[in-house]
Amino acid sequence: MKFPSPVSVEWMAGLIGARPVGNLNSSITGINEIHRVEEGDIVFVDHPKYYNTCIQSAATCIIINAETEFPPHKTLLVTEQPFEAYLTIVRHFRPYEPAVKAISDSASIGEGARLSPGVVIGHHVQIGKNCVLHPNVTILDHSVIGDNVVIQAGTVIGSDAFYYNTKKNREVWYKRMESCGRVVIEDDVEIGAGCTIDRGVTNDTVIGKGTRIDNMVHIGHDTIIGKNCLLAAQVGIAGGVEIGNGVTLWGQVGISKTLTIGDNATILAQSGVPASLEGGKTYFGSPTEDASVKKREIVWIKRIPELWKKVMEK
Amino acid sequence: MKFPSPVSVEWMAGLIGARPVGNLNSSITGINEIHRVEEGDIVFVDHPKYYNTCIQSAATCIIINAETEFPPHKTLLVTEQPFEAYLTIVRHFRPYEPAVKAISDSASIGEGARLSPGVVIGHHVQIGKNCVLHPNVTILDHSVIGDNVVIQAGTVIGSDAFYYNTKKNREVWYKRMESCGRVVIEDDVEIGAGCTIDRGVTNDTVIGKGTRIDNMVHIGHDTIIGKNCLLAAQVGIAGGVEIGNGVTLWGQVGISKTLTIGDNATILAQSGVPASLEGGKTYFGSPTEDASVKKREIVWIKRIPELWKKVMEK
Amino acid sequence: MKFPSPVSVEWMAGLIGARPVGNLNSSITGINEIHRVEEGDIVFVDHPKYYNTCIQSAATCIIINAETEFPPHKTLLVTEQPFEAYLTIVRHFRPYEPAVKAISDSASIGEGARLSPGVVIGHHVQIGKNCVLHPNVTILDHSVIGDNVVIQAGTVIGSDAFYYNTKKNREVWYKRMESCGRVVIEDDVEIGAGCTIDRGVTNDTVIGKGTRIDNMVHIGHDTIIGKNCLLAAQVGIAGGVEIGNGVTLWGQVGISKTLTIGDNATILAQSGVPASLEGGKTYFGSPTEDASVKKREIVWIKRIPELWKKVMEK
Repeated sequence: MKFPSPVSVEWMAGLIGARPVGNLNSSITGINEIHRVEEGDIVFVDHPKYYNTCIQSAATCIIINAETEFPPHKTLLVTEQPFEAYLTIVRHFRPYEPAVKAISDSASIGEGARLSPGVVIGHHVQIGKNCVLHPNVTILDHSVIGDNVVIQAGTVIGSDAFYYNTKKNREVWYKRMESCGRVVIEDDVEIGAGCTIDRGVTNDTVIGKGTRIDNMVHIGHDTIIGKNCLLAAQVGIAGGVEIGNGVTLWGQVGISKTLTIGDNATILAQSGVPASLEGGKTYFGSPTEDASVKKREIVWIKRIPELWKKVMEK
Repeated sequence: MKFPSPVSVEWMAGLIGARPVGNLNSSITGINEIHRVEEGDIVFVDHPKYYNTCIQSAATCIIINAETEFPPHKTLLVTEQPFEAYLTIVRHFRPYEPAVKAISDSASIGEGARLSPGVVIGHHVQIGKNCVLHPNVTILDHSVIGDNVVIQAGTVIGSDAFYYNTKKNREVWYKRMESCGRVVIEDDVEIGAGCTIDRGVTNDTVIGKGTRIDNMVHIGHDTIIGKNCLLAAQVGIAGGVEIGNGVTLWGQVGISKTLTIGDNATILAQSGVPASLEGGKTYFGSPTEDASVKKREIVWIKRIPELWKKVMEK
Repeated sequence: MKFPSPVSVEWMAGLIGARPVGNLNSSITGINEIHRVEEGDIVFVDHPKYYNTCIQSAATCIIINAETEFPPHKTLLVTEQPFEAYLTIVRHFRPYEPAVKAISDSASIGEGARLSPGVVIGHHVQIGKNCVLHPNVTILDHSVIGDNVVIQAGTVIGSDAFYYNTKKNREVWYKRMESCGRVVIEDDVEIGAGCTIDRGVTNDTVIGKGTRIDNMVHIGHDTIIGKNCLLAAQVGIAGGVEIGNGVTLWGQVGISKTLTIGDNATILAQSGVPASLEGGKTYFGSPTEDASVKKREIVWIKRIPELWKKVMEK
């Protein structure tokens, strides 16, 4: 999330009650979590294991729970509770606005859009021209929907990320990183019934132009899907994944978090993807392999009894 | 879809701007896509690879993008854009009717039916006697629901088919074949929460009498499910599948498109079905096999290290 | 389900039209199905195969379709149709109450709770303090939600169990065991979008304190999930499962009915669990195995061609 206008180190230190160290003149322009950080951003880190990744990232300012070595042009904001500081910033810039009516007055709806009964549209949502939202669709706060987008009944766009700060030595192990990111759906996208697309934690979840999504597809936070992709029913894609253009995922495929899938890859039904995949190829299996390799393996397994017999006979 | 009344070749040629060739006296009674075509139907074809299938089918009239050989009793309607002609016909006979209230005035609701808050019922829907529709259920246009049907909360009946005309040389690769088919749910069916059942493209998606469907089951367009079937949670069935009577599908099973599953087949949990299956047997695996064969394979895999050792010792 | 007050054998025999045999002085305090039965409960059994299990259970009173041997302190209620007698009892104590408004007057909503547009709350529901229910969430009759619970859009809590009395010699094979159980969600639980959690048939489905559930997760009737568990998207858990504390289930995992998963177990994505699992370990595969065993098997399969070659060369 970019802030409406840049803020000073001093102002930020005051907001979160932290001690500034290093470059006190930098200008903080937004907040991001570490996978998506850009220059100008503030990030947080609360475990020494990740100190270096954060300090070496593009971030301008790092909320941290202990002073440590860092390049002199960067800024540390030292506080005992970096995660709580993150929440304070998110809540300041994205305060909770209760939903009081089915279609928020702050939403903008393009010409020719057709909204069916039961549709709920949150605050600051933008919907393009000639969209069709079928009954009981929910579009949550800050989502951006392009032109000519069709969303079938019961689908949820912009639910909160499933993304937690984990500490197993406290009573509640998992504390939600509150989302301040968005869902952005480009022009000419069609989304099936009963789908859920989570908004980014601090950035955007994006569905590229012309992509078609079947029913009951789940797409995690901060995932970016290219143009002209085809996602069959019950596909599940975890958070932070990047999928190229022209990718086809058949039914019930699952993709683990923060992976990359190259342009024009095809992944056959029920495959489970534990690692990034090159484009232009066809994959199958759980865990996935090149489809021709996997199919040969299936044949080899059937030959084990024959092999056993040969060995016994020798 | 059958038309309200038969139309002449001349009338149809005028509607879609096509040149009629062959039998000019035939009567066109409906439109269907090639998998479900009957005598009297009009179909479309836009790729020479499929010309012959369409011309040899039961169709009375074929919308085609080039003149080709055909039996003299048939009719060709020649036009550069057969797919667009198909859309023109669908939109003529099934014009979009915006949903303006939660329960359409054109819906008919049987005696004793209980409709909960949040239920949306589209145009021309028929609902039988003593049905229970739980909250936030959506029943879309033209669906037909029998007597004593129970539908748990959040389920969507009659969403549009995930079925596209594909051309990868244009900006948007996938153009939706607009659905003019229906969902037909027979008497005494029970459907769980969060399910999605797509309507047929040009024909009916059917759920047979007495069938029980658990939560989050997806059923594709034009799929026909028999009587007294049991579908456990998160099953996904693609389009154009035919499932017999008394079939049991356990949780998370996936079935690929246009397959046939015989009466009283049982498919164990998480199986993936890539080819048609005979009735009366039990199947397992992804891809599925006879369950006993698959279980033996699992045992054989565990014996590979022993086999390796034997070979090394010889 | 416990009855509002204990009932006599005579009263119960009259309600269901059964003939009492054995101890006529016992006091019946509730109804349960056989997996969850406690002292004071009445159960039913209609197949000789299960007579003994029911008679030897903790049940005080057994509805049965034939007289048989039993301990003298127990009570039999003999009737030709035990299943119909069960339905009569459930309908007497939990009569169907039509939902007439989106939020029932008999629901109690805690201080600070935020209910979004499209939310439906059934009869006798209890919702704790500071809960957030996002749009189009459905909470069905008798559900109990603790404090600080967050439920994302479109989720259904308290749908009816997928649990049937099966007889393949009648026209409709599967007759629903009507649910009189509840869903109980403890404090500090967060549940994603598009989930479905079925209520218990006669007991409670429980989600333990601090547990986090991602989108499109299905949880069956009478399943009990411990504290601080993490369930990723599209997980499916059948009925009657017991999951310990601190368990992690990754995406698309499926768990079969009535199993037990030990504390702190981790089950990797797309695994299918056909048998109970010890706690503290990591599992993978369909069917699941210890993850390290499964990973070694995957390597061994890749060595079959090499093994074949060695055998051919000898």
